[in-house]
Amino acid sequence: MDFLEALEWRYATKRMNGKSLPEGTLERILEATRLAPSSYGLQPYTIKVISDRSLLERIHEDAAPQPQVKECSHLLVFATKTDLDDSTVDHYIELAATERGVAIADLNGFADAIKGTINGLETAADKQAWAAKQAYIALGFTLAAAAIERVDASPMEGFDPAALDRVLRLNEDNLSSVVIAALGYRDTAEDRMANMPKVRRPLYQLIQRV
Amino acid sequence: MDFLEALEWRYATKRMNGKSLPEGTLERILEATRLAPSSYGLQPYTIKVISDRSLLERIHEDAAPQPQVKECSHLLVFATKTDLDDSTVDHYIELAATERGVAIADLNGFADAIKGTINGLETAADKQAWAAKQAYIALGFTLAAAAIERVDASPMEGFDPAALDRVLRLNEDNLSSVVIAALGYRDTAEDRMANMPKVRRPLYQLIQRV
Repeated sequence: MDFLEALEWRYATKRMNGKSLPEGTLERILEATRLAPSSYGLQPYTIKVISDRSLLERIHEDAAPQPQVKECSHLLVFATKTDLDDSTVDHYIELAATERGVAIADLNGFADAIKGTINGLETAADKQAWAAKQAYIALGFTLAAAAIERVDASPMEGFDPAALDRVLRLNEDNLSSVVIAALGYRDTAEDRMANMPKVRRPLYQLIQRV
Repeated sequence: MDFLEALEWRYATKRMNGKSLPEGTLERILEATRLAPSSYGLQPYTIKVISDRSLLERIHEDAAPQPQVKECSHLLVFATKTDLDDSTVDHYIELAATERGVAIADLNGFADAIKGTINGLETAADKQAWAAKQAYIALGFTLAAAAIERVDASPMEGFDPAALDRVLRLNEDNLSSVVIAALGYRDTAEDRMANMPKVRRPLYQLIQRV
């Protein structure tokens, strides 16, 4: 397995063939997603994983009309926390203290730094933008892991977040959807993008040695 | 090489030992960064790669006081375009038409869709938030690729973007820094985080099957 070859192989798959991912494959992709870093390690998002066909139909009808929403194996909905506050940090610090075998008091300085960052985000929109950026790192990990597993993926911003939040009742969990990704297998006969050359800015333009 | 093992191995390295990345290793990481997807494939960002010691010293002094900024091999500065407009899209469409061997006119619908999205972002802050999210996918690819190459990385938001923009004169290129990442090798003797257990939200909390 060559990592760069996998990244060359992947593309934003527009049509999928409905085949399901083997459970172990899905689990490895989700574990990669879980391992993605985030600012302070806070992971201010939750990822809903949907494979129920009737629910996917409803999402397709109400919120995301792309065919791959119905044709995928699993749809991942990245949703950020809308109640990001000091208590979010306190919960995280409890987890960190347990995992690292240290006293909560030893992490007071760390907790204050995180709270300072969060409280420095003035509006709810600022908080969501910050949380969304963290979720996009996890999205990157998901897409890289899928490619390595030779699973196709289609990340999408072109959906109606408010409608999707209603379908999944995300507000009950203080969540709001920011980006979605369909996982499945390309339908090479139907997907006119399947054999298109990848378009990327040339290395010398995109990445500049100073 | 197991991908999940690599992601377990990585951590946000706080202290590095100053050793340089082999050129081929750096090139593979940057190629993974280049291959990262973005909304419509637009890649509305540029990545500056800095290894000059005096420039790293200056960045450390003026904009980013973390020790790894001086101790890294290369510092990557992810900077979003501040002049995102129809002409950005037109340039991209020219590139896409060339890469795919089609006429620019055949991509008119695609161009209009991208312009619609960009022009729908009302303020400069909205545009930057959108572009920053795309850059964070690329950051995710960089961090995953570094882990696979067993190169340490330290992504950082805790810097002074305005000061960094001044040092690198990013405004002359219509760019603005959004996140940075140091690449190098961990100094296990100095970095108290080197042997800390990784803290991640448990899978059942973070990733919920619906």
